[in-house]
Amino acid sequence: MKLATLPNGTPDGRLHVVTRDLTRCAPAQAVTTLQAALENWVAVAPALERDYAALNAGGGSPFQPLAALAPLPRAWQWLDGSAFDSHGDLMQKVFNTAPVDTGGKPLMYQGVSNVFLAPAQDVRMPSTDDGIDFEGEFGIITDAVPMGTPASRARAHIRLIVQINDWSLRRLAPIEMKTGFGWVQAKPACSMAPVAVTPDELGPAWRDARVDLPLLVDWNGERFGAANGYAMSAGFDELVAHAAYSRDLVAGTVIGSGTVSNPNYREVGSSCIAERRGIELADQGEPTTPFMAYGDRIRMEVFGTDGQSVFGPIDQAVVRP
Amino acid sequence: MKLATLPNGTPDGRLHVVTRDLTRCAPAQAVTTLQAALENWVAVAPALERDYAALNAGGGSPFQPLAALAPLPRAWQWLDGSAFDSHGDLMQKVFNTAPVDTGGKPLMYQGVSNVFLAPAQDVRMPSTDDGIDFEGEFGIITDAVPMGTPASRARAHIRLIVQINDWSLRRLAPIEMKTGFGWVQAKPACSMAPVAVTPDELGPAWRDARVDLPLLVDWNGERFGAANGYAMSAGFDELVAHAAYSRDLVAGTVIGSGTVSNPNYREVGSSCIAERRGIELADQGEPTTPFMAYGDRIRMEVFGTDGQSVFGPIDQAVVRP
Repeated sequence: MKLATLPNGTPDGRLHVVTRDLTRCAPAQAVTTLQAALENWVAVAPALERDYAALNAGGGSPFQPLAALAPLPRAWQWLDGSAFDSHGDLMQKVFNTAPVDTGGKPLMYQGVSNVFLAPAQDVRMPSTDDGIDFEGEFGIITDAVPMGTPASRARAHIRLIVQINDWSLRRLAPIEMKTGFGWVQAKPACSMAPVAVTPDELGPAWRDARVDLPLLVDWNGERFGAANGYAMSAGFDELVAHAAYSRDLVAGTVIGSGTVSNPNYREVGSSCIAERRGIELADQGEPTTPFMAYGDRIRMEVFGTDGQSVFGPIDQAVVRP
Repeated sequence: MKLATLPNGTPDGRLHVVTRDLTRCAPAQAVTTLQAALENWVAVAPALERDYAALNAGGGSPFQPLAALAPLPRAWQWLDGSAFDSHGDLMQKVFNTAPVDTGGKPLMYQGVSNVFLAPAQDVRMPSTDDGIDFEGEFGIITDAVPMGTPASRARAHIRLIVQINDWSLRRLAPIEMKTGFGWVQAKPACSMAPVAVTPDELGPAWRDARVDLPLLVDWNGERFGAANGYAMSAGFDELVAHAAYSRDLVAGTVIGSGTVSNPNYREVGSSCIAERRGIELADQGEPTTPFMAYGDRIRMEVFGTDGQSVFGPIDQAVVRP
């Protein structure tokens, strides 16, 4: 099933079901917000599935993806992984840092979650001196996950898959990283594509708790990357288990894959500027692609094997505060 | 004014005003939850002040601090500083790490905020092998702070002061710290003392946006530390400004001081075990104080110059999950 949240003047918006082809939508009948649905998923999902089946058969209103809010406009918890090793390798080149020693565990940080920006919302950034960058990612949303849940049981708690732009300020990132405390200033609020989908919607493209589809990234109208989401060194099930080691995960926890990246980045391109700059550094001795300027637009979209947009697009501009 | 949240079966509980001496309480009239009050503080605070004045004059019900929830039982954002330099110096000894290069900025990480444990709630920890430790801290709660707010204006957004136990798993902390991503597994949910107070309640003890009072820490009934909260290298106003550089701070953002620590730690003691172990390492060549065991109790309390408990106690046990 496919779900979106439309603005209704409240912080959490109004939950809608959306047709598979993203052309029509209708308000969910059993529950008004996605957060409420996630808090009671097992009881609520069958009713949502019925709404979804009825809508796909006909009726509803036109769905305008870029008028939607983030499917989950605010969340109690956002934990972002960094599960694509080729991204990490390039970041070390860019920042001139030693390989990250993870102790065999997935990489993960906790970020701002009280707002996920809408897919077409202008993104206010304090200064272009900070190295404004996008990061195209996949993410999942869980229901409540008890502390200590292993990966084998974590997968069943992955209720929805989403597409995320994890905004990053690259000139601040290494300063914060060196402290060991992780990022605060370097990681402003993320954006989310308009539609969240249940794993079954992806069919065989939901493989090993990973999204086996390319993430298309266009910067100012030019194709920048089309890296595939399958290359995660840890699947989302393992990321959930990692996160739940010493805490109960609240229903509506969002967990990100980290920047989607493939080892053949010279062919498929990148999902963030920093990675391209890493390639340029490796190939030419210095990075030549600048970071984003005010007014720049970023578009990110994922198409299924049927050619259909899966999550709808993120399409937004960076602006002065 | 002094505020507490009593359980009523909802995640946010029921906001109460509490007498200055913490003996009596009454439901707030103008608003039912602390989160709602913080979202509309300027409008709501005068009514709360009237409730508070009336209660101090008489009436209300007996207040049982250890039956209260955390004043803010869940928050959209928890950012913890590490503003006591003597704590950082000792942690480097314990973890055998290089001095943290902060680039001249305050240290800060984002932690789990969807629950703040109640002051007497049992604390479930996955394993005593992880090095279970308490961290006594002061914290503040803001109303909405716009992105880019400087320290000079940030101070007015500090609406409440709280007392926090930032639970830590010391054997996991250095592993996560080395990644640069900050802590996820090493930082389970925090606990909060039962009463939040407005800055004016502290009188001259609210000095330079710091709490100039000792934090008394008792581990299994023995005094462990009485470090003063004034020694922060950055005040809470500066911590708020740091946090707000590239994000709007949501109303109800909680910001912590980091473990309260004083340079004369041999006289005043410590607010966490790791620090005592650091002293032992420095003095004896090896740490001898173990971390916490299941069943261990921790009590933390702060008394004003009038001898009155300011925030009420945290008094809780570590238990198996």
